[in-house]
Amino acid sequence: MQHKSLGEMQCAIARSLERVGEWWSILILRDAFQGLTRFGQFQESLDIAPNMLTRRLNGLVGAGLLERRPYSLRPLRHEYVLTALGRDFRPVLWSLLAWGNKHFMPEGHTVQIVDAETGAIADPVLVDRRSGRVLLSPDFESAAGPAANERVRKRQAFARAHRENEAKP
Amino acid sequence: MQHKSLGEMQCAIARSLERVGEWWSILILRDAFQGLTRFGQFQESLDIAPNMLTRRLNGLVGAGLLERRPYSLRPLRHEYVLTALGRDFRPVLWSLLAWGNKHFMPEGHTVQIVDAETGAIADPVLVDRRSGRVLLSPDFESAAGPAANERVRKRQAFARAHRENEAKP
Repeated sequence: MQHKSLGEMQCAIARSLERVGEWWSILILRDAFQGLTRFGQFQESLDIAPNMLTRRLNGLVGAGLLERRPYSLRPLRHEYVLTALGRDFRPVLWSLLAWGNKHFMPEGHTVQIVDAETGAIADPVLVDRRSGRVLLSPDFESAAGPAANERVRKRQAFARAHRENEAKP
Repeated sequence: MQHKSLGEMQCAIARSLERVGEWWSILILRDAFQGLTRFGQFQESLDIAPNMLTRRLNGLVGAGLLERRPYSLRPLRHEYVLTALGRDFRPVLWSLLAWGNKHFMPEGHTVQIVDAETGAIADPVLVDRRSGRVLLSPDFESAAGPAANERVRKRQAFARAHRENEAKP
């Protein structure tokens, strides 16, 4: 019921979350980006119960983020490979990595993003593709788009009023 | 039990997910960025059961993403406001928004990021802050950091071998 309601929300974030489910799914995606493809590999990496792993893998296949394809015919065995939609999730994962690296790794970074050629450590930041400006408040804000319904428009108007109120001296 | 294991993982993504919990928490954060602060506001926006909302709000307060503070003394009432750590989560939310806008909004965008001055629509992309280069495979990749343990190093070595194998003609 809750799951269904997410997809019905007129919200790209809610619809995204409907696809990635919860954190097991996101950790599976993390591992898929690392080249893991087989059930046993995910199980060993995640220390997850088999029935839970099956459910999450099926969910990610159903949502179109992973593709299930045979790698052995006798016996029949499948592997799970990122689709184009799944690969497109990487910036979300790397944004999570950057946030976690900044705040939750007092012992130092265990994983970082590097230039594949030089090994130089990258510092991930979300910018506007055209202007290159960093996407931060108050320079940028969310606003109702062309397909917003009344509810979304009201919410965005509320948010704008809230920001203007906060900005008052 | 599962929750505990996340924080114990030597992984910034797992530790981030431990904080944001699951998608209710992320939708609460989304609303907090829109200026919602009060229990009733979140409840109306999310159509969530009160006990679930209480649990998620407490979780976000406990994780340091929201601060609970009184806005009325008689009767005593609290509001929930983003902390610096919580505000720092915005790039993750906006990355989710971009992914969802790209793939799951066939009716058009309902929410978009805009320049607060001009209203021009921003196109969010994750780049390396220094070079400005877009963080995409194969130009960039994840690698073991200075604090990686043996398990993380093995995983990164596996991922590297996998990428090199994929890159073969």
